[in-house]
Amino acid sequence: MPPLPSEHIVKSYDEELARLTGEIQRMGDLALKELEAAIAAVVERDSDSAERIVESDKEVDALENEVGQDVIRLLALRQPMARDLREVMAALRISSDIERIGDYAANVAKRAIALNRVELVRPVFSLPRLGKLAAEIISEVLLSYRDRDADRALLAWARDEELDGLYTGMFRELLTYMMEDPRNITACTHLLFMAKNIERIGDHATNIAENVYFIVHGTQIAQTRRKGDNTASVVAKVGTGKSA
Amino acid sequence: MPPLPSEHIVKSYDEELARLTGEIQRMGDLALKELEAAIAAVVERDSDSAERIVESDKEVDALENEVGQDVIRLLALRQPMARDLREVMAALRISSDIERIGDYAANVAKRAIALNRVELVRPVFSLPRLGKLAAEIISEVLLSYRDRDADRALLAWARDEELDGLYTGMFRELLTYMMEDPRNITACTHLLFMAKNIERIGDHATNIAENVYFIVHGTQIAQTRRKGDNTASVVAKVGTGKSA
Repeated sequence: MPPLPSEHIVKSYDEELARLTGEIQRMGDLALKELEAAIAAVVERDSDSAERIVESDKEVDALENEVGQDVIRLLALRQPMARDLREVMAALRISSDIERIGDYAANVAKRAIALNRVELVRPVFSLPRLGKLAAEIISEVLLSYRDRDADRALLAWARDEELDGLYTGMFRELLTYMMEDPRNITACTHLLFMAKNIERIGDHATNIAENVYFIVHGTQIAQTRRKGDNTASVVAKVGTGKSA
Repeated sequence: MPPLPSEHIVKSYDEELARLTGEIQRMGDLALKELEAAIAAVVERDSDSAERIVESDKEVDALENEVGQDVIRLLALRQPMARDLREVMAALRISSDIERIGDYAANVAKRAIALNRVELVRPVFSLPRLGKLAAEIISEVLLSYRDRDADRALLAWARDEELDGLYTGMFRELLTYMMEDPRNITACTHLLFMAKNIERIGDHATNIAENVYFIVHGTQIAQTRRKGDNTASVVAKVGTGKSA
């Protein structure tokens, strides 16, 4: 049976949405690979690989531009409503979060290059652990977007707390190393900023999870969780301990 | 002469856009005040004021949500085209950048509280200077949005380079203090992160400028400038100097 004209329009809209979704999946896969490669570049002290990561981030940026243009065209020509409109708006927001994730991964790579130029007095095992957890969360969030699975998004969203805990521990550890021996200061400053970048990546992953939930349910995630950086108080404590 | 029905519709759309623009102006003013107050809280070592700033950031977040809802409603009911669509999409992006600026200002306030708990061995004059410049850029960018003045936006956009230069200098200065005397490490770590927050604020201000330009011209700013943090190489240099 040949499709009715109205189905034609629906199908064509679905195709455009599928294209948009595909672009976002591709962006997400690239950003995830960037993060994993950046962590590997730190561990293996591989500056050449780090340079390539910084370069490859341009691809993510280019895809974000494409998504932005597709969204504007889709809104103008298709005037989507209800869930369709949520899909389009969420695509825009998710692409912006993935772009930020790629940016932070590229920052980790940039600092890896700098870190390779200075003496590393102590090996730091926490960074790969932090990076691995962030990568896992991103991967889960991307799967939840692919399947429009709000429950999976919620589970990934909740794991950011684990990441924040790990980050706070690492922050404390690095500060102690710096105080122990000034020769650690330069390397530890790099590692502090790298850890901070990964902590921010976690926040953007939770934003994506929130958008997946919003697509499916049309509402915000009801649970509230204070996202992010608790190191302000940690530093105070470490500092107080030292100056006491 | 009574207005034609079509003018009625046009007027009503303009009213909705004016409402949206007003919300963004209000958001921008709040975020700017937050930053200025956060810097003052650092200088005056005023933790009570810093607490109030952290609290007041919720207002900015609430306004961002309002803008998001207004945008979705406007897109769904009015289906704007061309410049009107650019206005609406830019409003969404600008509100997200202002929300981030407020967030970073609140982070500066949080760290001000922690900084007040530790010994400040050296006074740091660079942070207020950095904060003042960032506030000036934000203020200019908000005026360029109010007047839809692309030239003014472009001028503000270009000043972010000045901010990045100041940030890099401050980063170098703080690292030197840390190496000089380990008692500086805790305070300087806070100041490093505060400076980083302000540097990021500058990036978001340039994003807003880019959106104002986009509203007016429908194209991206053609000049390209590598935004952001150049401290990766600075640290390497300082580090090399120390370990040589």
